[in-house]
Amino acid sequence: MSGAGSFIQKALIDDSFWSRIRETVRREGIPYQWEALNDRVPDAEPSYCMRNFSIAAGKQAGTHAGFVFQDSDVAKWIEGAAYTLRWHPDEALEAVVDGAIDEVVAAQQPDGYLDTYYIIGGLEKRFTNLKDHHELYVAGHMIEAAVAYYQATGKRRLLDAMIRFVDCIDSAIGAEEGKLHGYPGHPVIEMALIRLYEVTKDEKHLKLAKYFVDQRGQRPLYFEEEDARNHNSFYWKDSYFQYQYYQAGMPIREQTEAQGHAVRAMYLYAGVADVARETGDAELAAVCRRLWANTVERRMYVTGSVGSSEYGEAFTFDYDLPNDTIYGETCAAIALVFFARRMLSLEAKGEYADVMERALYNGVISGMQLDGKKFFYVNPLEVLPEASLKDQRKRHVKVQRQRWFGCACCPPNIIRLVSSLEDYICSANDDTLFVHLYVKGALQAEIGGKAVRFEVDTDYPWNGDIALTYRGEGGAAFALKLRIPGWCGKYALRLSGEPLEADVKDGYATVDRTWQAGDKLELALDMPVKLVRANPRIYEDAGKVAVQRGPLVYCLEEADNSRNLHAVRLGGADASQFTTQWKPDKLGGIVELRSPGIRETDEGWGETAYSADREIRTVPARLTWIPYYSWANREPGEMRVWVRR
Amino acid sequence: MSGAGSFIQKALIDDSFWSRIRETVRREGIPYQWEALNDRVPDAEPSYCMRNFSIAAGKQAGTHAGFVFQDSDVAKWIEGAAYTLRWHPDEALEAVVDGAIDEVVAAQQPDGYLDTYYIIGGLEKRFTNLKDHHELYVAGHMIEAAVAYYQATGKRRLLDAMIRFVDCIDSAIGAEEGKLHGYPGHPVIEMALIRLYEVTKDEKHLKLAKYFVDQRGQRPLYFEEEDARNHNSFYWKDSYFQYQYYQAGMPIREQTEAQGHAVRAMYLYAGVADVARETGDAELAAVCRRLWANTVERRMYVTGSVGSSEYGEAFTFDYDLPNDTIYGETCAAIALVFFARRMLSLEAKGEYADVMERALYNGVISGMQLDGKKFFYVNPLEVLPEASLKDQRKRHVKVQRQRWFGCACCPPNIIRLVSSLEDYICSANDDTLFVHLYVKGALQAEIGGKAVRFEVDTDYPWNGDIALTYRGEGGAAFALKLRIPGWCGKYALRLSGEPLEADVKDGYATVDRTWQAGDKLELALDMPVKLVRANPRIYEDAGKVAVQRGPLVYCLEEADNSRNLHAVRLGGADASQFTTQWKPDKLGGIVELRSPGIRETDEGWGETAYSADREIRTVPARLTWIPYYSWANREPGEMRVWVRR
Repeated sequence: MSGAGSFIQKALIDDSFWSRIRETVRREGIPYQWEALNDRVPDAEPSYCMRNFSIAAGKQAGTHAGFVFQDSDVAKWIEGAAYTLRWHPDEALEAVVDGAIDEVVAAQQPDGYLDTYYIIGGLEKRFTNLKDHHELYVAGHMIEAAVAYYQATGKRRLLDAMIRFVDCIDSAIGAEEGKLHGYPGHPVIEMALIRLYEVTKDEKHLKLAKYFVDQRGQRPLYFEEEDARNHNSFYWKDSYFQYQYYQAGMPIREQTEAQGHAVRAMYLYAGVADVARETGDAELAAVCRRLWANTVERRMYVTGSVGSSEYGEAFTFDYDLPNDTIYGETCAAIALVFFARRMLSLEAKGEYADVMERALYNGVISGMQLDGKKFFYVNPLEVLPEASLKDQRKRHVKVQRQRWFGCACCPPNIIRLVSSLEDYICSANDDTLFVHLYVKGALQAEIGGKAVRFEVDTDYPWNGDIALTYRGEGGAAFALKLRIPGWCGKYALRLSGEPLEADVKDGYATVDRTWQAGDKLELALDMPVKLVRANPRIYEDAGKVAVQRGPLVYCLEEADNSRNLHAVRLGGADASQFTTQWKPDKLGGIVELRSPGIRETDEGWGETAYSADREIRTVPARLTWIPYYSWANREPGEMRVWVRR
Repeated sequence: MSGAGSFIQKALIDDSFWSRIRETVRREGIPYQWEALNDRVPDAEPSYCMRNFSIAAGKQAGTHAGFVFQDSDVAKWIEGAAYTLRWHPDEALEAVVDGAIDEVVAAQQPDGYLDTYYIIGGLEKRFTNLKDHHELYVAGHMIEAAVAYYQATGKRRLLDAMIRFVDCIDSAIGAEEGKLHGYPGHPVIEMALIRLYEVTKDEKHLKLAKYFVDQRGQRPLYFEEEDARNHNSFYWKDSYFQYQYYQAGMPIREQTEAQGHAVRAMYLYAGVADVARETGDAELAAVCRRLWANTVERRMYVTGSVGSSEYGEAFTFDYDLPNDTIYGETCAAIALVFFARRMLSLEAKGEYADVMERALYNGVISGMQLDGKKFFYVNPLEVLPEASLKDQRKRHVKVQRQRWFGCACCPPNIIRLVSSLEDYICSANDDTLFVHLYVKGALQAEIGGKAVRFEVDTDYPWNGDIALTYRGEGGAAFALKLRIPGWCGKYALRLSGEPLEADVKDGYATVDRTWQAGDKLELALDMPVKLVRANPRIYEDAGKVAVQRGPLVYCLEEADNSRNLHAVRLGGADASQFTTQWKPDKLGGIVELRSPGIRETDEGWGETAYSADREIRTVPARLTWIPYYSWANREPGEMRVWVRR
């Protein structure tokens, strides 16, 4: 089957749900981060990021500071800023970015090499620790920044610099005799090279991406050889994942399970899907489907988070999805969105978009405070504040978002995703416009030589009514494929007010016609409250349900429901007993749910720990549910997604 | 209220349930350990224990090897061997012990000091790291060994040596000016000094115990001063327990919660109860009651295990009792038994004996393989074998007992407890004989100048019928107080075949009369299966029940019930639907329980992770329950105590 075509810059967003986040990012996040990268934020740990570039360029003396991957912070910043320029042109910001790019490029070496850690610390050591020194990871992010900025502004300065850096990498690493047969410890360059290839059409870029994908995990194992050369002991030698921490324990074509560090895994699989698509490699596409299936069927939370364990920030084993000790890194959910879109590009199946939506509306944006200024690394589905202080297993589970992190991966990652959300909403190929996500604004593409455009009006995700009005060139004949979400059991289509029957296949309803300006297509997705059960093999969720409405997973929070949420159960209440209410002033505006429930009390128990004679008395409760993404925006307290039935 | 009198050597055991373990200990454990202590076990890590004594005595050259507390291994061995000599005189073994004592005493210094780590490593350093170098802990165990051996054999050689060592300690450490104001990092010497005092009646020994109890946690904090002198950084400085890891964050009289390392806590509290009893200190007794209550009401598992977290092998917070990531060290349950008996000595309340029994029949003996040759440190209430390999939170949870440990604390501890079980069964004071535990054999004491003795016949814990036949001096007038266990809702007493009414107060039924030879008292404790609920504040057990019959907690094991035990629930079955059957050939002989139940299946789910549309189908199940202590004696597999109702 064929993919869903190209995604880049096919939508415009004019939507209150996303604008809240996007405008915060644009107005506050981007300027704040620039100050942070330049060590000008009082009371914050210095970043040293721009200072490193200055030292590397010989403009000042000093030693490298920060993580080995510190350069990637400015890369992500440039990328995020580039995206905002696409939907909010801003000359002043563009000038700042140009200046940042000048600083970056000034450090580039004559042969194209560009990584301040080694430029400052000793170029003779470069490419000697691909496993842990993140050189190719930094390169990957800088390539993504370069492509994004080029696509946003047409400016090639960073793009050309990165092409030269890729040439440098390519001359040192690869399958050919005399080159290092290595690959990155932390993937991302695979995706980045494919983005570069899409711009340059230079086969060298595709070939290098394919090399990184296929060389990974080949025997003899490059990382073992590298460790031996460096006299390093292997940090994960006693772990259950060993080299699969890096997804490098075996060649990718032999891998069947999502293993190791979750962000690395998702980045890699996304890159593999890119390579599979661009090379038409059916075997590699099958590998992606297999890894996708294992991820979403057995190792993903209902919120779209992945990574069950803080140990290695990693996947564990099938159906192991603890809600309270989860890692569920924001970056991993973001990376799952990357993977999902690339699977859609491989084959246009709604199940990929379903997961993309699930992650985006839940486990991704839960990573950011409603005001856009604080962030979670870890996104639990169950929180007990005392446990986060006194249970070592849960000390990584914070009950409040943090202002920034020493290892600042999640905040800029969420920023670059939400500021490029246009690239996930719809896609087009020669004869079809796919709508994957429903966001108010517009869809636009060139199809069959015609400029196609729809205005989209909707209050999604708060209700399921979506109106698409054709505003493109008249007489354009193409198929509009509208995703019918997996959560939606009933929907209706009307064209110019008249009921319309449409085939649904692979999760999309197709309206194939010749469109005229003003044509109005209305899609009504039934959006009742649903009580979601987990597969009975997921042992942590046995006997429990999660509440979902549309794409949003809901939760109970102490602020609404008082403490001891473990003692709350639905008491057999079914979905029809839930009421919905729009609360414009609560948590930035939410549809709040209320339901009956039962609260178990300790009445009559006193200080008895165990008893065969005491009943557990219950009182009726009125439960208030809020969207999961909005938790932890009030006073710290308990939170719970899965509740006993 | 008054205590339950003296416990030591008041019972004889002739019982198949306990003999299995005790005979294994005597015939195999004791000889095996002696070989181990002398580094004569092939394929085992050397202990170095006796070698250290030999070096310390100047008999051979070498450096100290093993843990700083390695000496305590021979102490525990001597103690265990001493107990077996009480119920199985054995000249050959006694000669070996005498030889071991010679070896130990040969290393003693002229001033009484005796710790091979410092004798070999530099005596000028002694008493400089009381916090972590276990000097007083080793002394405590050696004192316990000395007293036990003296009580078993009348031989004073080790006893006298230890009295001299205590003199040495007392001259260096104490409240007086010029002494170190320290105390042990790992308690045990407090209990030991009281045992010594009971034998010597030397007030110095009581005073030193009292000093250790009261000095602990006083400001300025001795451990802080010691760390400063040693330029040590404080290992637990980022922990939630800080110096409460050592129960030394505040004076004992201010402590209200069971905190820190669980074994240390229980050892300390037991010692505090000893001191409270011997000094008649009512305030200290109240402290013990408070710490007891916090322990058993809010921080103890249904199996009598304590210590919720592997981090620090420690207590966490109220009602935090995870079943799968528990530490529940065998030693901690043993120490809880020590604490319970000392609380009984403070005040004769059945609730203490209830906990003593709960720990003994469940979380203590679960630590030992049925063949007595393998041991658990950690005693989980829920096990998933794959998680023990691939979930870092559960890697300490073994699915099979281990042959021995580098840090060999649990095996000798369980051995010294079961080989001295006589000291826990009954107790006597001037006018009363208390029966706390029901074990086939005999009870014996001197009461009011008469030699009192009962033969005890019972199949406890398999049924609740206990016959006590008076075989002591005729005409002895005293009260026999029989514990009516907390788990028993109905009981009947008969005297010489006639029904007898007896007052029950504080958990004991009193039969106060003048006893004649041949008097036969029959106690019938109703022992139905009970479904135990946890206090609703214990969040990990919400919605679940544990199955108990008599003192035994039961569990489901994969060997009987196949996999996916999380998917099993009782389905509303009540206790009356359980059947019992004596299985002489199963697991050393057990009463097995069977019950109806329900198994949730994944039929119809395929690879779907989450669904609002799929029901969870169930099939009836026939569940087989085995006593918790007997788990992990067949092929490795899942196990679960708490099951959804």
